[in-house]
Amino acid sequence: MLTVNAYAAVSATEPLVPTTIERRDLGPHDVLIDIAYAGICHSDIHTVRGHWGEISYPQVVGHEVVGIVREVGPEVTRHAVGDRVGVGCQSNSCQNCAQCDKGNEQYCLNGNVQTYAGVDVDGTITQGGYSQATVIHERFVLRIPDGIDLDKAAPLLCAGITLYSPLKHWNAGKDSKVAVVGLGGLGHVGVKIADALGAEVTVLSRTLSKKDDGIAFGADHYYATEDADTFDKLAGQFDLILNTVSTGVDTEKYVNLLAVDGTLVMLGRPSETLTSTVMPLNMGRRSIAGSGNGGIPETQEMLEFCAAHDITPEIEVIGAEDINDAYERVLKSDVRYRFVIDTATLDD
Amino acid sequence: MLTVNAYAAVSATEPLVPTTIERRDLGPHDVLIDIAYAGICHSDIHTVRGHWGEISYPQVVGHEVVGIVREVGPEVTRHAVGDRVGVGCQSNSCQNCAQCDKGNEQYCLNGNVQTYAGVDVDGTITQGGYSQATVIHERFVLRIPDGIDLDKAAPLLCAGITLYSPLKHWNAGKDSKVAVVGLGGLGHVGVKIADALGAEVTVLSRTLSKKDDGIAFGADHYYATEDADTFDKLAGQFDLILNTVSTGVDTEKYVNLLAVDGTLVMLGRPSETLTSTVMPLNMGRRSIAGSGNGGIPETQEMLEFCAAHDITPEIEVIGAEDINDAYERVLKSDVRYRFVIDTATLDD
Repeated sequence: MLTVNAYAAVSATEPLVPTTIERRDLGPHDVLIDIAYAGICHSDIHTVRGHWGEISYPQVVGHEVVGIVREVGPEVTRHAVGDRVGVGCQSNSCQNCAQCDKGNEQYCLNGNVQTYAGVDVDGTITQGGYSQATVIHERFVLRIPDGIDLDKAAPLLCAGITLYSPLKHWNAGKDSKVAVVGLGGLGHVGVKIADALGAEVTVLSRTLSKKDDGIAFGADHYYATEDADTFDKLAGQFDLILNTVSTGVDTEKYVNLLAVDGTLVMLGRPSETLTSTVMPLNMGRRSIAGSGNGGIPETQEMLEFCAAHDITPEIEVIGAEDINDAYERVLKSDVRYRFVIDTATLDD
Repeated sequence: MLTVNAYAAVSATEPLVPTTIERRDLGPHDVLIDIAYAGICHSDIHTVRGHWGEISYPQVVGHEVVGIVREVGPEVTRHAVGDRVGVGCQSNSCQNCAQCDKGNEQYCLNGNVQTYAGVDVDGTITQGGYSQATVIHERFVLRIPDGIDLDKAAPLLCAGITLYSPLKHWNAGKDSKVAVVGLGGLGHVGVKIADALGAEVTVLSRTLSKKDDGIAFGADHYYATEDADTFDKLAGQFDLILNTVSTGVDTEKYVNLLAVDGTLVMLGRPSETLTSTVMPLNMGRRSIAGSGNGGIPETQEMLEFCAAHDITPEIEVIGAEDINDAYERVLKSDVRYRFVIDTATLDD
């Protein structure tokens, strides 16, 4: 067992605190990663505060994890000591069902293992990336392409793939009109990827305060959702709407913005129920869908795509001692656009 | 102008009564149809009772209309005097938008014209099929294949296409598992079509009272939704669920029955909002969708498909004087499985 420094939540209501956790001994297919950076995702906050159900404490979160391979198990073939690597939202799965076989580990029929607060196949509770090192099965370790700095790679492992996967699944590209709702950690990466895929991209944000940024990231249009005219003006326009907002939105207003056969994908996971009636769906064979991150092959593909198109998230690097302040700033949308923890600040 | 006998609603709360209405003079592309039968659809009741918004009275409903061509306009090429024909939910559209050009007249971007209570391109309110005759643009007149009796053809023009279109759009066939929620006018035709397409078909009905019928129509499995175990037993099973129930159902319970990438299609058009949260959608990239009848080419294809596979609805033929009683029986689900009005009973 390896003891490593980490930052953990000790209850749903208290600040995160420095602590130590144990990492398992290297199994034959395991990779020991010295963590360099870990992104802060809104899901981290939802999880430690119990918004998505009770968890056990202490809990280390973080599923945007990058670093350098320190050691590999004897049967590891995919990674080598010194490689630049990353870990995203899933750190394991049954590896033996129809969905895992298709590379859709995120939809593992036996329940994938979330990188934190999940139950691993050995029964232990998984601990995430706000720590010095981690041990992960090689299948769930991604290669970070040379063209991407390690700190900027971190948010791609959740925010990047969460947007890339639905953009690909619902065929965003030339001749498609895509709207991204919310220009935050997820949304700003979504705009960059959708633009690189060739789509006509519209940002729907509460106000116009980030309009210059949105256009710089590749948006063709930018509208304020607090302006009621926006919903009249854009009715029936979009083939795909990616809603990245974490709190409830009036679903039906967004359904009405869909073109015939259009899809509204809910990525922000609010706990509220959908507020749309059925008729606006029937009127144009429209859909409301969900999407869960992406599988390992698709995540690797996304990293290569971002390297090829020079796509990186906008980040603010912080020390571990700033995590609690960063959480408050995330909740106030006061970050442009993703916090990344420099885990060297966890060293003694 | 042609004056014809009809049965009309005169308010949202009174019984339908015998009356006369005017049909327009034949335009160059119009077809005059002597109506033989008209099916009774739950939508008829919703409409005359104002459940879907205020309408003007008197209003004749009925959008499952079959009969014989009596006369055609000078430029009509698709139909001839004496042809066996039908009219479904749409009786006109702009005929000049991207969706009409694709044969998706039901999604006409300028608003299709519903066969009753719609506003036609000349500004008049459309009057439906509970009448002796009607005048319809040839594009919206379907050919009834010889293999299908006229009375049995009627329900195919709404119930049939409403189920056929989503079954085809979401690729129901061999290797797919389809559930039909509700074994009523729509559902029973859906079971027959899904079975003919080669899908493994499950009926989800409130009780098991119609189980023998469901199996006879082609269902492979039949479960009662009032049995809570059903929702545990069938979790994650279906590629496609067609919900034909007209009142609100607990959407999330049905979402949880979907396989990865599965779709729940809401066909019954309850006025309630959807009750699902987002997480069950995200867990398996599932969708909740709507679907609006079908376009004219697809409706013709459906009629040929039903003729080729010997699929006809189960009907109970009634006289016009029985319409009000029939409405009450529809509301009590006391019909196996569709009422069809013999419009000869409207003759003086």
